[in-house]
Amino acid sequence: MSKKLLESIQFPEDLRKIPREQLPEVAKELREFIINIVAVKEGHLGASLGVVELTIALHYIFNTPEDILVWDVGHQAYGHKILTGRKAAFHTNRQLGGISGFPKIEESNYDAFGTGHSSTAISATLGMAIASQLSGDLTKQHIAVVGDASIASGMAFEALNHAGVTNTNLLIILNDNAIGIDPSVGALKEYLTKVNLDKTPDTDNIFEALNFSYFGPIDGHDLPIITENLEKLKKIKGPKLLHVITKKGKGLQQAEQNQVTYHAPGKFDAKTGEITQKDTSHLPPKFQDVFGYTLVELAKSNKKIVGITPAMPTGSSLKYMMKEFPERAFDVGIAEQHAVTLSAGMATQDYVVFCNIYSTFLQRAYDQVIHDVCLQKLPVIFCLDRAGLVGQDGATHHGIFDMAYLRCIPNLTLVAPRNEIELRNLLYTAQLGLQQPIAIRYPRGRGNILDWQRSFKKIEIGKGETIKKGSEVAILSIGTMATEVSQAINLIDTSRKEKVGHYDMRFVSPLDKSLLHAVFKEYNTLITVEDGVISGGFGSAVLEFASLHKYKNDITLLGISNHFPEHATTSQLKDSEGLSSEKIKEAILNKL
Amino acid sequence: MSKKLLESIQFPEDLRKIPREQLPEVAKELREFIINIVAVKEGHLGASLGVVELTIALHYIFNTPEDILVWDVGHQAYGHKILTGRKAAFHTNRQLGGISGFPKIEESNYDAFGTGHSSTAISATLGMAIASQLSGDLTKQHIAVVGDASIASGMAFEALNHAGVTNTNLLIILNDNAIGIDPSVGALKEYLTKVNLDKTPDTDNIFEALNFSYFGPIDGHDLPIITENLEKLKKIKGPKLLHVITKKGKGLQQAEQNQVTYHAPGKFDAKTGEITQKDTSHLPPKFQDVFGYTLVELAKSNKKIVGITPAMPTGSSLKYMMKEFPERAFDVGIAEQHAVTLSAGMATQDYVVFCNIYSTFLQRAYDQVIHDVCLQKLPVIFCLDRAGLVGQDGATHHGIFDMAYLRCIPNLTLVAPRNEIELRNLLYTAQLGLQQPIAIRYPRGRGNILDWQRSFKKIEIGKGETIKKGSEVAILSIGTMATEVSQAINLIDTSRKEKVGHYDMRFVSPLDKSLLHAVFKEYNTLITVEDGVISGGFGSAVLEFASLHKYKNDITLLGISNHFPEHATTSQLKDSEGLSSEKIKEAILNKL
Repeated sequence: MSKKLLESIQFPEDLRKIPREQLPEVAKELREFIINIVAVKEGHLGASLGVVELTIALHYIFNTPEDILVWDVGHQAYGHKILTGRKAAFHTNRQLGGISGFPKIEESNYDAFGTGHSSTAISATLGMAIASQLSGDLTKQHIAVVGDASIASGMAFEALNHAGVTNTNLLIILNDNAIGIDPSVGALKEYLTKVNLDKTPDTDNIFEALNFSYFGPIDGHDLPIITENLEKLKKIKGPKLLHVITKKGKGLQQAEQNQVTYHAPGKFDAKTGEITQKDTSHLPPKFQDVFGYTLVELAKSNKKIVGITPAMPTGSSLKYMMKEFPERAFDVGIAEQHAVTLSAGMATQDYVVFCNIYSTFLQRAYDQVIHDVCLQKLPVIFCLDRAGLVGQDGATHHGIFDMAYLRCIPNLTLVAPRNEIELRNLLYTAQLGLQQPIAIRYPRGRGNILDWQRSFKKIEIGKGETIKKGSEVAILSIGTMATEVSQAINLIDTSRKEKVGHYDMRFVSPLDKSLLHAVFKEYNTLITVEDGVISGGFGSAVLEFASLHKYKNDITLLGISNHFPEHATTSQLKDSEGLSSEKIKEAILNKL
Repeated sequence: MSKKLLESIQFPEDLRKIPREQLPEVAKELREFIINIVAVKEGHLGASLGVVELTIALHYIFNTPEDILVWDVGHQAYGHKILTGRKAAFHTNRQLGGISGFPKIEESNYDAFGTGHSSTAISATLGMAIASQLSGDLTKQHIAVVGDASIASGMAFEALNHAGVTNTNLLIILNDNAIGIDPSVGALKEYLTKVNLDKTPDTDNIFEALNFSYFGPIDGHDLPIITENLEKLKKIKGPKLLHVITKKGKGLQQAEQNQVTYHAPGKFDAKTGEITQKDTSHLPPKFQDVFGYTLVELAKSNKKIVGITPAMPTGSSLKYMMKEFPERAFDVGIAEQHAVTLSAGMATQDYVVFCNIYSTFLQRAYDQVIHDVCLQKLPVIFCLDRAGLVGQDGATHHGIFDMAYLRCIPNLTLVAPRNEIELRNLLYTAQLGLQQPIAIRYPRGRGNILDWQRSFKKIEIGKGETIKKGSEVAILSIGTMATEVSQAINLIDTSRKEKVGHYDMRFVSPLDKSLLHAVFKEYNTLITVEDGVISGGFGSAVLEFASLHKYKNDITLLGISNHFPEHATTSQLKDSEGLSSEKIKEAILNKL
C-alpha cells in the first residue's frame, strides 16, 4: 500500500487540504509510520497510538499553531510531531542530537509548551488563554489534551478550579483511556468509568459542578464523530471539556492487550507486534527489581512495612509487593504530594513506610518532605528511583537536583548506595527503625552484581567506605558513580594509580566526618564525583566541611554543571558531563 | 460572669462531664477566653472564633485523642489547644519558649499532626485511618477539619481522590466560611456557595461523585445540631464529609465584619474589638507595600505586566494592583503549583508576569519552577515574600531554604535586595525584559528607608556592591542581612573597624565573579552572612567559587545551621541563630 496521503503532509496546512472522508486513511498511515519507526528506534508507543485520530482531528479542525495545542505529559505527541514538520526527523527521536521525545518549545512553534511531567497542561494553556483575552483576541482556541490519570493530579484540579471562573476559550480534551503508565486509580477514575458506561449519566457531573461545559463521552477513534464535535466546540466560548474515550495502543493488537508492557516496549516486530526478546538472565539486576524483591522479602518478616507509589508500580517494581501484600502496598495515582503526606500520616502510627518516588517527581512534593515529614522527624523511608541522569527521557526527567534540594533539609538522612547489595542493605537497615526520615537514591537500570541476594547486613548511618587507599589524590564518590571512578582508576598506569585513593562517601548527610578528617589529612588533593548538579550538591557539602575545619586542600568538584542536560543514552550523557570513566581519569591525571 | 465551666475543663474528659445543654455556655466562655488573651498577646483570631462550637462538639462527641483529630492549616486550633491541656500556657502562644501557634505533635498527644501550610490534613488523616484499618481497629474515627479555601488546593483533591476508593473511617469536616486569609475564590467556592444557598441541592455533588457520603450543610454555630450530626456520623463507616457553615470571627462584631483585618489583628480592645491604633506614618514601609505600590506604578506604563498570587493578595500587597487593574491581577487561591505554571503559560505569550509567592510556599511549586519555568527559560518574575526568618509563625513558615533550593536550578537568576530602594529597582529592572526567569527574595516586615519612592534605576544583573572597603576581613552579605552587618561593623572600635570590608553581593546566582575575585585577592579572611540555611546556601556558592579558582582564603559561613528554628520574634531568632548585629560583631572580632 502506498503511503501517498502521509507523504503529502509536512504541516497541518497540508493535512487540511485532504478531504474529510480520507482522514481515516491518514490515520492508518500515521499509525503505521509510528509503529514502523518505534519498532526499530524504540520510544513511547501505546500513548501515541491511542491518539492518532484525535491528533489528526485537532490539527484538521483547528488552525494550529495560531490556535494553541498543549499535550499534557507529552509522550503521546509522536503523531503531532510527525504532522508538524518533524516527519523526516522522527527516526532521531530521543537520540543524541535528535528530536525530543516530548513537546519542546524550541523544537517547533507547534509545540506551544514543553511537557514531560504530568498535569501541567491546563495551567499553561489557561495562562495562554488569559493572555489572549487580555490582548483582545476572543476567537483563538486554547486546547489542552490531558489523560484521565493526569487530570486526577492535584495541580490539574487547581487549574480546573481557576479556569471554571474565567471566561476564556479553553478547551480541555480529556483523553480517557483508563491508564497512565499503569492502570488509573482513584475515585475520579471510578467516576469516569461510570460516566462512560452510562452514556446519559445520572451521576453528578464533576466538571459541570466546576462550571465547565461538558461534552461527551465520544469514541476517540471515530474520526467523523471527533471532527464533528470539535467543529461544534470551536464555536463555543468559555471553558469546556470534551470527554474522549480512547484505547491505549490502538491498532497494534499486542499493544492494546498488554498496555503496560507496550507503553515503551523497546524494539519489536512492526508486523506481528512481537517484542524482540533479549536474554537478560546473565545480566545483573535492575536497581528497581532489587528494591521490589527486597521489599517483599523484608515485608514478610516485618508486618509494619507498607509501600507507597504515586502511579509507578511497574516502573518502581513496587508491583511485586502489591501482588504479594495487596493490602499493604498502595498506588495512589499521580499524586506525589499526597503520597508523601499519606506516608507521614502512616508513620505517626508506627508503620514503616517505604515511599518510592522517582527523583525528578519528588520535586512535586518538596514542601511535603520538608513540612510534613522532616520538620516532624517522621521516619518515612523515601526511595528515590531514577536518581541521576536517566538517558533518553531527557531534560524533563533527569534526577539531578535531589542531592542539592534534599541535603539542606534538617533531620533528613540522605544516602546513595554504590551497588545492588548496598541498596539491599540500606532497605534492610532503614526498616530496623530509624528515628528520622531517610532518602535512598539510586539510578535507573542495571547494576553490576549478579549474586546480589546475599544475607542482610546493617549499614551504619553516616559511615562511608574506603574502596582503595592512595597517597596524593583522593576521589570521594557518591552512589553508583563509584563504578566509573573505579574504572577510571583502573585506566591509570600502575605507578601513578598507587597514588590515587577512592572513598565511597555513601551518605550526603550526615557526612562521614571521621573519614573526611582522615582523607583531608592524608591527601593534598581531593576530587568529588557525583551524578547530580554541582551547585549545592554533594561536593558542595564537602567544601562546607573543609571550610568549617579550615582545611586548605585542593578540591575539585565533578558533577553536572549549571545547565539542563538533554536526551541521549546515559553513557553519552555521562561522557558529555565529564562523568564517564575516561573523563574522570583525565581529571585525576590532571592532578597527579 | 464567672467562668466556672471553662475553669473545670483541663482536658476533653472534663468537657464530656458537662451536660450537653450547657455546651453553648462553654462556647461563650471559650470564645471570651480566646478574645481576652489574643487581644493582649496577639495571634490569629478570626479562624479560631469561627470554630469554637465545632471544636467543643468534636471533643465532646469523639473520644479524642483515641479518635484522631487533625486541624488543617492549624491557626484555627486555639480553642482545641485550650481544651486539651494548654489553657494555662495559652498566654505564651507564639512567644519564645511558649506554645506554638499551630498544632504540633511534640506539644500534645491531642495534636495528631503538625500543620501550618494548608491542605495537608486529609492526606495525613487518611494515612492514620489506613493504619488503623491495617491494625484491625475498625471503630476509631479519623477526623480532618479543612477549610473551604484549603480543600480547593490540589493536594487536598489528591487525598479526596484516594480516600474515595478506601473504606476507611475518615470524616472530613468541611469548615466552610468562604474565606481563607482573603475571601475564597474559584469554581469550587462558587459550587459550595450554591450548595449553601440551595439547601436541597439540585446541583451535581462533587463529593458524592468522589464516593464520599455527603452530609450538610449545617449551621456550625448551633451546638445541638452539630453534636447531633457528629453523633450520627460516628456510627457511619467509610469516608464521609460533613459540610459545616461557619462565620470567621464569630462572636466579635468587628471580626465578623472585617474578616481580613481580624485574621490576625494584632492588639485590640477585648471589649469593643477596636484595634489598638499605632501611628506608623513615621516608619519606613513594609517590603510588601514597596512591592505592591511599585507594581502598580510599573503596570501603569507597562501594559504587559500582570500579577499573580496564590491566595495572598493582602499579605503580599498585590491587592493594590487587583484594585487598580482588576483584569491584570489574579488571585488563584491556594494553588501555588497552578500559579507558577499559569505564569509560565502567560510568559510564553510575552506577558511580563510577576508571580508573588511566600518563600515557604514556593516549596509547594518547586517542580513547576524547575520544569515549567526554568527549563524553558521563560522570563517569569518570582517575588518571594517572607524570605528568611518570619518570626512568630515559626518552624512551618520560615523562608530559609529558598537560596539552597533555587540556586541549583539552571537559567534562574536569584537576587535579594538589601533595602526598599533596591527591591523597587529590581522590580523595575525585571520588567524591562530579561531573557530568563528571576527570583527576588525579600523579608517580612519593614525596611529602613523613609523616602523609598525615588525614580527608578536599572540594576545590572549579577553585580554586587561595595558598601565599605577594608583590608583584613571582608563580609559578604546577601539581602537585608546587610543591615545587621553594617550595624555590627559600627559596633567595632574605630581602629579595628577600618580593617573590615563589607560587600552586598546582591545576586546569589549569578555570583558577581569580578567582585569576588577582587575580594579574594584583597582579603585573607571572608565571612558570608545569610538569613537562610548554610547547607547549600549563598555561602556555599561562595565556597564553590573559591574551590573553582583555587583560592585558599579563610572563609566562615554565617547562617542558619542544620535545624528548624522555632517561633519567637525575628530579632530573638536572629540572635539565637548568630545573625544579630551583636553576634555578627563577635564573629568579625574573632577574625581580627
